[in-house]
Amino acid sequence: MIRIKLRAPYLVFVGDQEEPSYAKTGYGLVDWRPELVAGQLRFGRNPVDLGVPDLDVDEAIAVGAQSLLIGVAPIGGVIPGDWWDIIVTAAESGLDIVSGLHGRLVDMPALASAAKGSGAALIDIRVAPENIPVGTGKKRSGRRVLMVGTDCAVGKKYSALSLTAALQESGANATFRATGQTGIMIAGEGIPIDAVVSDFVSGAAEILSPDNEPDHWDVIEGQGSLFHPGYAGVSLGLLHGSQPDAVVVCHEAGREVILGWPDYALPGVVECIELNVALGKRVNSAIRCVGVCVNTSALPAKDKEDYLRRLSDETGVPCVDPLIDGCAPIARILLADA
Amino acid sequence: MIRIKLRAPYLVFVGDQEEPSYAKTGYGLVDWRPELVAGQLRFGRNPVDLGVPDLDVDEAIAVGAQSLLIGVAPIGGVIPGDWWDIIVTAAESGLDIVSGLHGRLVDMPALASAAKGSGAALIDIRVAPENIPVGTGKKRSGRRVLMVGTDCAVGKKYSALSLTAALQESGANATFRATGQTGIMIAGEGIPIDAVVSDFVSGAAEILSPDNEPDHWDVIEGQGSLFHPGYAGVSLGLLHGSQPDAVVVCHEAGREVILGWPDYALPGVVECIELNVALGKRVNSAIRCVGVCVNTSALPAKDKEDYLRRLSDETGVPCVDPLIDGCAPIARILLADA
Repeated sequence: MIRIKLRAPYLVFVGDQEEPSYAKTGYGLVDWRPELVAGQLRFGRNPVDLGVPDLDVDEAIAVGAQSLLIGVAPIGGVIPGDWWDIIVTAAESGLDIVSGLHGRLVDMPALASAAKGSGAALIDIRVAPENIPVGTGKKRSGRRVLMVGTDCAVGKKYSALSLTAALQESGANATFRATGQTGIMIAGEGIPIDAVVSDFVSGAAEILSPDNEPDHWDVIEGQGSLFHPGYAGVSLGLLHGSQPDAVVVCHEAGREVILGWPDYALPGVVECIELNVALGKRVNSAIRCVGVCVNTSALPAKDKEDYLRRLSDETGVPCVDPLIDGCAPIARILLADA
Repeated sequence: MIRIKLRAPYLVFVGDQEEPSYAKTGYGLVDWRPELVAGQLRFGRNPVDLGVPDLDVDEAIAVGAQSLLIGVAPIGGVIPGDWWDIIVTAAESGLDIVSGLHGRLVDMPALASAAKGSGAALIDIRVAPENIPVGTGKKRSGRRVLMVGTDCAVGKKYSALSLTAALQESGANATFRATGQTGIMIAGEGIPIDAVVSDFVSGAAEILSPDNEPDHWDVIEGQGSLFHPGYAGVSLGLLHGSQPDAVVVCHEAGREVILGWPDYALPGVVECIELNVALGKRVNSAIRCVGVCVNTSALPAKDKEDYLRRLSDETGVPCVDPLIDGCAPIARILLADA
């Protein structure tokens, strides 16, 4: 198994996590892939509610659930004992267990033993698959668009999901390709690119987005930024391995420095387009930028339209806030040329 | 231990490996750091001779050896039984065991048990240290020069060693910083950059080359190439984390395509300078190229001087074959400005 693959539908574990911001994975799943979610497992009267049926393990199995997916992070990062009890019970009952938490599932002996007994899989989606090869640089069939960014945490995953939806709504054959943990849960498969040993990052991106039909679009979740002093190498490896025909630059309006690296000014959107196109040409001479996705939440609502119009004038491509406007204008550019 | 550190002097294991090209590590060590080598351990009348005293384990310990270092690769990659016998004996006697081979030393139970009994360390230099942090991008004191390349296997390690020697001969305070396995054995410490998880490559480069005296030069072994479809991400992470004041481009005269990637033309030396300087500016605005090291072995001897002179005219910096000419002209440029 070189790509992580999850078995749906999921029972999403919420437990007693009462802080909604710690339940982003669960909310993201229900937002983007409700058809994959059989229900949620909450303790007592937990006010965090994903809006899907409350099920216990037996009920979930009765309705066909295949995996228990931990959709929340524990406060302090340590899984409490009563979470483990339920997780072990689920594994004993044959549900695969899927976790993006730091501690590895396989390191919990009672769980490992339960999974062994029932044949359930324990899937730590922070852990990269083994046996990823070095990137070949060989041209693959099908078409690819990669999200790139002026920084981390500028909405690359949501932009990719929104663009995938817009392409599909236009009748195109498109697949979201996940490179991070939450993305992998939403997609049901993927590779956590930032956990791959550096020599194999391009190779992982190649495997993530294999040969496909000539008119099929892979919409690839980006990671980091070529301008990020910590993560630029990850971004370049992903750019090279993805061989994109097109990139979409993701950006947050109003952000002035790299998040957490205050000595590093954020690059301009045009500068970000130019560098990604220049470096991407090494593996795909036809690469071009087809749009910009902006998180405009920091702008006064009245300024949003002006901001996007000015940016569109400057860059020559459609600029949208994907969560407000969707990505239809960008999808049209991609499909006009396909 | 975030940097791998080796204890010298070494007993270099040669065994019955009779093929000199499989003994490059051993030869490299004796060439570059003879003072670290107590002797060699050969089986019988092996014609491979590093030119240092023949010692068995007891003799090596008597003259102060601290580590047994496997200086050859086994044919077929599998260590034969009689190699293991000696290696286990050495560990029982308290010598650290140092290996760059694929199989991990710790996975050999008899060896693990011997090492545990004597307190010897088992050091697999293909394995990256744990707990490497994300790169901070923070400016460090001291000066740094990074070897970069038009490709892999163009002499970055030897260029770095030669430049370190030239700087030291000029009276400068300079340290070779190793990023690959053979380099780590020669330096006695380092980090195998290509084995580091991609998120932490810049952080590893930062740790490899910490704060230092204002006039001290770190000469950093490069890896890969920004133009390499498999490894460019490693090269960019290393460039960012190294924050070099200067780069030296390493190149092999006559090579036309990326070695093993025949669809990818080798970049020009000037193009390679420009891209490294452009991307390196993100972390050090003063970065510049100070020289080019060329492996001219594929050229007719009579053409070498012309080739280097033309390249120097084209690039505006000294161009040398480090193994023939040394790196004094490049060291002079670095020190003129220090």
